[in-house]
Amino acid sequence: MRRQITGFSNPTVKYLRSLRDKKHRRREGKFLAEGLRLLTDARESGRLPELLVMASQREGHPLLAVLEAEVQHAGGEIVETSAEILSKITGKDNPQAVAGVFAEFDTSLATLDRSAAQIWLVAQAMRDPGNLGTMLRTGDAVGAGGLILLDDCADPFSVEAVRASMGAIFTQRVVQARWEEFLPWLRGGPGQLVAASLRDAVPYREAPYSAPCFILVGNESRGLPTEYEAECDLRVTMPMRGRADSLNAAIAGAVLAYEVLARLDESSSPLPTSRATGGSSAAP
Amino acid sequence: MRRQITGFSNPTVKYLRSLRDKKHRRREGKFLAEGLRLLTDARESGRLPELLVMASQREGHPLLAVLEAEVQHAGGEIVETSAEILSKITGKDNPQAVAGVFAEFDTSLATLDRSAAQIWLVAQAMRDPGNLGTMLRTGDAVGAGGLILLDDCADPFSVEAVRASMGAIFTQRVVQARWEEFLPWLRGGPGQLVAASLRDAVPYREAPYSAPCFILVGNESRGLPTEYEAECDLRVTMPMRGRADSLNAAIAGAVLAYEVLARLDESSSPLPTSRATGGSSAAP
Repeated sequence: MRRQITGFSNPTVKYLRSLRDKKHRRREGKFLAEGLRLLTDARESGRLPELLVMASQREGHPLLAVLEAEVQHAGGEIVETSAEILSKITGKDNPQAVAGVFAEFDTSLATLDRSAAQIWLVAQAMRDPGNLGTMLRTGDAVGAGGLILLDDCADPFSVEAVRASMGAIFTQRVVQARWEEFLPWLRGGPGQLVAASLRDAVPYREAPYSAPCFILVGNESRGLPTEYEAECDLRVTMPMRGRADSLNAAIAGAVLAYEVLARLDESSSPLPTSRATGGSSAAP
Repeated sequence: MRRQITGFSNPTVKYLRSLRDKKHRRREGKFLAEGLRLLTDARESGRLPELLVMASQREGHPLLAVLEAEVQHAGGEIVETSAEILSKITGKDNPQAVAGVFAEFDTSLATLDRSAAQIWLVAQAMRDPGNLGTMLRTGDAVGAGGLILLDDCADPFSVEAVRASMGAIFTQRVVQARWEEFLPWLRGGPGQLVAASLRDAVPYREAPYSAPCFILVGNESRGLPTEYEAECDLRVTMPMRGRADSLNAAIAGAVLAYEVLARLDESSSPLPTSRATGGSSAAP
């Protein structure tokens, strides 16, 4: 059953629009993801939207048909509306023909299983939702377990972060915690905390990484607080050949994560599955 | 001499605002950069703004005093205005207390000296100004000579790209060219063209890089055209351990650039200056 919505003032439209606002997302415990590709990533990761909104003027697509059938089967709601209203919902001039509402995930540290992956990304006070989504995407690529957000970070469930994650919001674990909570948790089990740093650091290509490795990057403009750096098990430096003394936070995290991945691979015996032996590749 | 501007309808205010628009930037051959840090980077790289706009309510800063004196000495114009008008000029709610107008640089391929650096970044149809600015910043960090923009890229002189470059717009060479123009130029001298690829590629940690190395990344959603990939001297793959088959374009470029930097360093004799031996470091 598809419900047709034609009016801008319809309560469902207002509800969907409100999910672009952090306060409303928090209150409802829901977030919005747009586009068939993202919704298909979600479905293949076992996440279905509670509510699916489709443009009435759209091209048919087999993946959309599958998605609609599964949402319906799971008891979700299907809404059809105009491109204009969809544009108002997503805040984009050229909205994708489909969007979905998902329940936010549990982001508590308590439920995190550190043994589930060799690499974990950690961002402190990361303010840019695009950087945050990009870190999720990078985490997926390096086989990280997830992204731990310390202190006041951008909202991982914002439309911008979800978009930049390219689906990784559905495959990576996302945790939100204060430093005061994270540090005792980290020290309660195995784990190496590594930060890119200017102080008392070793070259990043020669550093002794060990799993599970927690790669910590700091705020976009201030970097990491000194006392956080001091708590790290390993401070590493990357070459800076130009005038600047820092990299973009998501870039620094990615360069470091790829180095850690390669080095942990070298030091471990070959992994059992063909998936893990590097047969697949990256196109930018 | 500081000229005071108090009215929103002042022609200078209109002119400055118009520089947020690509069409006007092109016509005037000028662009806008904001913030004392960026303007100081510019000055230290030998670039002074033709026109300096300062908020009348601002904290004094020795670097601003130096900047103002040098602009004045060079015959530039100094304008003082309200925070409200500055906000209108920059399009930001909390504008930096200072902005400058610069003449756009020559971006023609003809004047590029490939022997000036071991690494060059090349972006094809990169649409996101933030990604483009981030690539400039990464280029500065790895000691690249500059960024070559192929086909229809975002404008490197947009406020967003300039901001994301963190000053690298003033230190990196920026070139704009069509592929049909770039390829014959590249083949007219030494140079290895390298792309991250899914096809017929070697692992990026084992590939035989050589200088000058041109690192090519493709459009954010479509990647590189097949025929561009086919022209590359080296196609390399990066591990993709998750569900996704690609990285963010600026991330892929950075991971590859840092790998190339490390490998070229290994294969060459130590460089003569202390600057180049990796004593400085990266904070995210």
